[in-house]
Amino acid sequence: MIVVMKPNSTETMIQNMVQRVEGLGLKAHVIVGTERTVIAAIGEKRDEQKEMLAACEEVEQIVPILAPYKVASLEAKPEPTVVEIGKFAAGGPNIGIIAGPCSVESEEQIMESARRVRDAGATALRGGAFKPRTSPYAFQGMKEEGLKLLAAARDETGLAVVTEVMSPDQVELVANYADVLQIGARNMQNYNLLAAVGATRKAVLLKRGPAATIDEFLLAAEYILDKGNTQVMLCERGIRTFEAHTRFTLPLATVPYLHEKTHLPVIIDPSHGTGHANLVSPMCAAAVAVGCDGLIIEVHPDPSKALSDGAQSLTPQVFADAVVQCRKVATALDRQLH
Amino acid sequence: MIVVMKPNSTETMIQNMVQRVEGLGLKAHVIVGTERTVIAAIGEKRDEQKEMLAACEEVEQIVPILAPYKVASLEAKPEPTVVEIGKFAAGGPNIGIIAGPCSVESEEQIMESARRVRDAGATALRGGAFKPRTSPYAFQGMKEEGLKLLAAARDETGLAVVTEVMSPDQVELVANYADVLQIGARNMQNYNLLAAVGATRKAVLLKRGPAATIDEFLLAAEYILDKGNTQVMLCERGIRTFEAHTRFTLPLATVPYLHEKTHLPVIIDPSHGTGHANLVSPMCAAAVAVGCDGLIIEVHPDPSKALSDGAQSLTPQVFADAVVQCRKVATALDRQLH
Amino acid sequence: MIVVMKPNSTETMIQNMVQRVEGLGLKAHVIVGTERTVIAAIGEKRDEQKEMLAACEEVEQIVPILAPYKVASLEAKPEPTVVEIGKFAAGGPNIGIIAGPCSVESEEQIMESARRVRDAGATALRGGAFKPRTSPYAFQGMKEEGLKLLAAARDETGLAVVTEVMSPDQVELVANYADVLQIGARNMQNYNLLAAVGATRKAVLLKRGPAATIDEFLLAAEYILDKGNTQVMLCERGIRTFEAHTRFTLPLATVPYLHEKTHLPVIIDPSHGTGHANLVSPMCAAAVAVGCDGLIIEVHPDPSKALSDGAQSLTPQVFADAVVQCRKVATALDRQLH
Amino acid sequence: MIVVMKPNSTETMIQNMVQRVEGLGLKAHVIVGTERTVIAAIGEKRDEQKEMLAACEEVEQIVPILAPYKVASLEAKPEPTVVEIGKFAAGGPNIGIIAGPCSVESEEQIMESARRVRDAGATALRGGAFKPRTSPYAFQGMKEEGLKLLAAARDETGLAVVTEVMSPDQVELVANYADVLQIGARNMQNYNLLAAVGATRKAVLLKRGPAATIDEFLLAAEYILDKGNTQVMLCERGIRTFEAHTRFTLPLATVPYLHEKTHLPVIIDPSHGTGHANLVSPMCAAAVAVGCDGLIIEVHPDPSKALSDGAQSLTPQVFADAVVQCRKVATALDRQLH
Repeated sequence: MIVVMKPNSTETMIQNMVQRVEGLGLKAHVIVGTERTVIAAIGEKRDEQKEMLAACEEVEQIVPILAPYKVASLEAKPEPTVVEIGKFAAGGPNIGIIAGPCSVESEEQIMESARRVRDAGATALRGGAFKPRTSPYAFQGMKEEGLKLLAAARDETGLAVVTEVMSPDQVELVANYADVLQIGARNMQNYNLLAAVGATRKAVLLKRGPAATIDEFLLAAEYILDKGNTQVMLCERGIRTFEAHTRFTLPLATVPYLHEKTHLPVIIDPSHGTGHANLVSPMCAAAVAVGCDGLIIEVHPDPSKALSDGAQSLTPQVFADAVVQCRKVATALDRQLH
Repeated sequence: MIVVMKPNSTETMIQNMVQRVEGLGLKAHVIVGTERTVIAAIGEKRDEQKEMLAACEEVEQIVPILAPYKVASLEAKPEPTVVEIGKFAAGGPNIGIIAGPCSVESEEQIMESARRVRDAGATALRGGAFKPRTSPYAFQGMKEEGLKLLAAARDETGLAVVTEVMSPDQVELVANYADVLQIGARNMQNYNLLAAVGATRKAVLLKRGPAATIDEFLLAAEYILDKGNTQVMLCERGIRTFEAHTRFTLPLATVPYLHEKTHLPVIIDPSHGTGHANLVSPMCAAAVAVGCDGLIIEVHPDPSKALSDGAQSLTPQVFADAVVQCRKVATALDRQLH
Repeated sequence: MIVVMKPNSTETMIQNMVQRVEGLGLKAHVIVGTERTVIAAIGEKRDEQKEMLAACEEVEQIVPILAPYKVASLEAKPEPTVVEIGKFAAGGPNIGIIAGPCSVESEEQIMESARRVRDAGATALRGGAFKPRTSPYAFQGMKEEGLKLLAAARDETGLAVVTEVMSPDQVELVANYADVLQIGARNMQNYNLLAAVGATRKAVLLKRGPAATIDEFLLAAEYILDKGNTQVMLCERGIRTFEAHTRFTLPLATVPYLHEKTHLPVIIDPSHGTGHANLVSPMCAAAVAVGCDGLIIEVHPDPSKALSDGAQSLTPQVFADAVVQCRKVATALDRQLH
Repeated sequence: MIVVMKPNSTETMIQNMVQRVEGLGLKAHVIVGTERTVIAAIGEKRDEQKEMLAACEEVEQIVPILAPYKVASLEAKPEPTVVEIGKFAAGGPNIGIIAGPCSVESEEQIMESARRVRDAGATALRGGAFKPRTSPYAFQGMKEEGLKLLAAARDETGLAVVTEVMSPDQVELVANYADVLQIGARNMQNYNLLAAVGATRKAVLLKRGPAATIDEFLLAAEYILDKGNTQVMLCERGIRTFEAHTRFTLPLATVPYLHEKTHLPVIIDPSHGTGHANLVSPMCAAAVAVGCDGLIIEVHPDPSKALSDGAQSLTPQVFADAVVQCRKVATALDRQLH
């Protein structure tokens, strides 16, 4: 890391900082510039060393040189990670499509959803059984009953099941039924939960928190990887900005940026990312064009009766049309969409 | 709520919407304007009705009229809630000061911190035993050992103990030692955790998530209140914006705004809110001037040796000076600071 | 608009508000709900009426029903506006590609840029002669000399010329040389400048300010349209958010959203929108897939020698490859790219 | 500046970069770390050198060490600049209060405003004659007639006159009547306008743009200072964030931060910064507590009849009460408020 000393730092202050840097086990290299002295600290580790130096009064700023994540980095593993479950594949040339309702609401609803998204080209089924809802007065999900319905839908359709887990003590239960454990955006930095899913060998879909930087996002993934679970998919679902005409702002540049930094597959969620059904289809095509490894899309047999997220849910027909457009783009750009 | 129909909606579409509104148990009131027809739906509840109507294609927008929270609202309880623990009091005329290190690091460190913040005017001690850290490679806290040291510090100094709980299964353990259960900003929407602290009768310090709207913040409090725990303090600790010269952006207007909406006390955290020790003291004085009910401030015997958050920690002396300034402002404005 | 009265408003307060609404020439319609009374004010105009009512103490909030822009709206003109200049066309089925260096730096540089972007498929040439630079110490452009070089490049290549105008008193000069007057993001709300370009009959490329809402963006266009100039292209070039790994955050959902609201063509600027050359190409393909009407891309014969924006400039070869990808996507989705 | 090379950079690439750095007239200093090689470039100037190097493919990032502004910096002038006009003084120990309506609407309105804000303790009068309005359909100001009324109000009350100038060609006219030329937030980066007011010797109130970083804000001031005008006041009036319950988010930490970086006085605008009259008074007190050098506050004889910004305007009585509170805080903290 680079330690930038304040202007007018004395020789003594600089020597003290050199000693402090060396006391942290680093090699100090002093560079006297025309207006500032900087000290390059060689041998940087990814821990709290930076913070300790930043607390010294004579320091103007600390500039880390290394990214703070390790296992997630492309330097650690240059070839892309591919997550495969049955016909679902995300990573490398493969684009996997996860679709289904926001919440599991009934046997009929989830079965019809599963059949129709499979027929349209999805290879995984989404559906919430444990629902994190902003209001305590909103529908909170069917819980284990919902998990059972998801498993039944998988048995019939062959779709992989993706569903959210909200708490460490639910991990075992959810893992009994699901193929992919989803960590919601609100829980991206729920570290006890990350460690718990890291201890399983189920694939994980980790959603980016709406205020998370990319480094924070990758460090959240690192909590999971650090426990030995290598099957992590990163999901961009929009960030919170001043824009109010969409539910969140969906930054598709995340996809090529992450591909330069990490081997993990990147999934786009245009449903939460926009919040309006009529914006979802064009953003699906754009996500494929920008190089995403998968999509997760809310589809409901009748959005106007959905118990949650109706405004952003596609009808099965609109979803089928969107998949057709995505496939055209994928084909044009030599990507594979099942 | 108000349902705004799209331009060119037919009489049939409007009648269908009226039936749909009435099917939700609401009274529909049609108003034909010069360019739009709107339907006022009377009898609004605070649940998913809004979302269902928003999913209808002929609807341009839904405008809710009521705030989504109930128990937290000033309409439900017009007089301010005061949280009192020993000498600590926050709410109404009282300003409570919580101070101490980011993390408990050793017996000596926490004891010295406790004595010095008490001598300077604090009435509660902060200190993390379970630490949510952005990186899995950073110091994660002393855990139960840290809780024991906090309890020992309380025994000696009489300060109330405020410490974070990260997971539902830690609640009982932390509640055995702490006076106030802190919910960190990363966990503001960890609903299982909110429910778990709501089931205790310990006071709770709920930090605003860096991307949370005020409604989301109050709804998170509502999850705790809904379980019967009335002792909730709301903590503004800064939001994530494009500003990079501070760690977060600390919006002090939150204080008077919340005071118009809720009876719960509002605590300001200028340490995380700015991220730089030299900005903390002036922001403390400003927080008192704007009408906050309390402050939570990071203080470390030697910030340059802190294992976390050193750059934003005050020395005990600077903290003592800051309290002097806060007291001057409080006195000038007829508030009480112990 | 809808006037929401505060809870506990008396009958007298409501009657006073009714009179006030009627005094503004609107028809008042009182709706007594279970917890609030609202007054629908029918006959809403797009002016300051809203603000006057919002200033009344007994009002909780004012909800406008109509969008504040008129001429720009799809309701005013349902068919898409197409801007055509020589071979350049943007709007309807046509995708126009504008490319070239950030700044005009020399005859050789702009001529080579023009030839190479034309050969790769561009139909318009960008290049700044008057440069708004964040620092007064940075290169400020070649000014009229630069305009002359742009005109010479048009003469040779047939490309339409797009260049920025910074001040009302420059409009006549720039209009003498350019085909499209660009309003930079910093000047999106420079109303005197908007009025000045509105008074010409040159096409205008209006860039969205990095903190502008869509309504503010369309109202800025409205200033130009209001003066009788119908040839306005809207350019999304990224908004300022907390993301620091890209120069701005480029929200592609702006494209389908604007297409629902306005007949004006929407151009995407992935160069400023990302700030990094390696992110530009995938975002070009994504922009075409999402339905944009044009692209504006920075291309420099040798980005490492560019006097401005080198980090986000493509080499001519990379640009040519990007156009190939865009054309594949456009063809797959039945759009026309010259 | 520090040039961080990509991992796996070859010796040749490093030597090429050294030559390139030296070709820019800088001294290169190579530091080989454990995972990256960095090159310290000594002799950094504040111009486009950084951008050129950033465009080289083998560069991972460029870290500037120096702030990009010069004349505005505290290093250039350690003692605070004080702007004094009649009884108005801002900077050093002095807190100046500027108050008045958003727009000049009539002789009666501006005269009553002037008298009442003077009686309450203001030393300068604000009032817009040329109004930048988001909508072309909104009231655009009384123009020169408004300037004359402002001058008349000064003659009667002795208040200094602060009013906005929107365009370079208006500067002479406005300077004939005003004591302080205000640059609005929308024009913070209207460089032709900045240069034009820089060429006068009138004091300037420069408002921060809602998406401007502090560096961009100081560089805008630098455009004015660079023309020889030293009388610049910096005005924080709120930034655009995701918060919708206030018009903007007002970050008071800007005040102590700017005081560490620049000698220019810092004025707070709590009217635009919050957008709601009931939040203005507490934010005034907070601004004084945090150390501001002045306040600019919207006051209208009857806010519910204001042609602009009524919702955020104080009545004269509420303003007088706010000044009393501000004076108490100022006195407690040893600041001077006229």
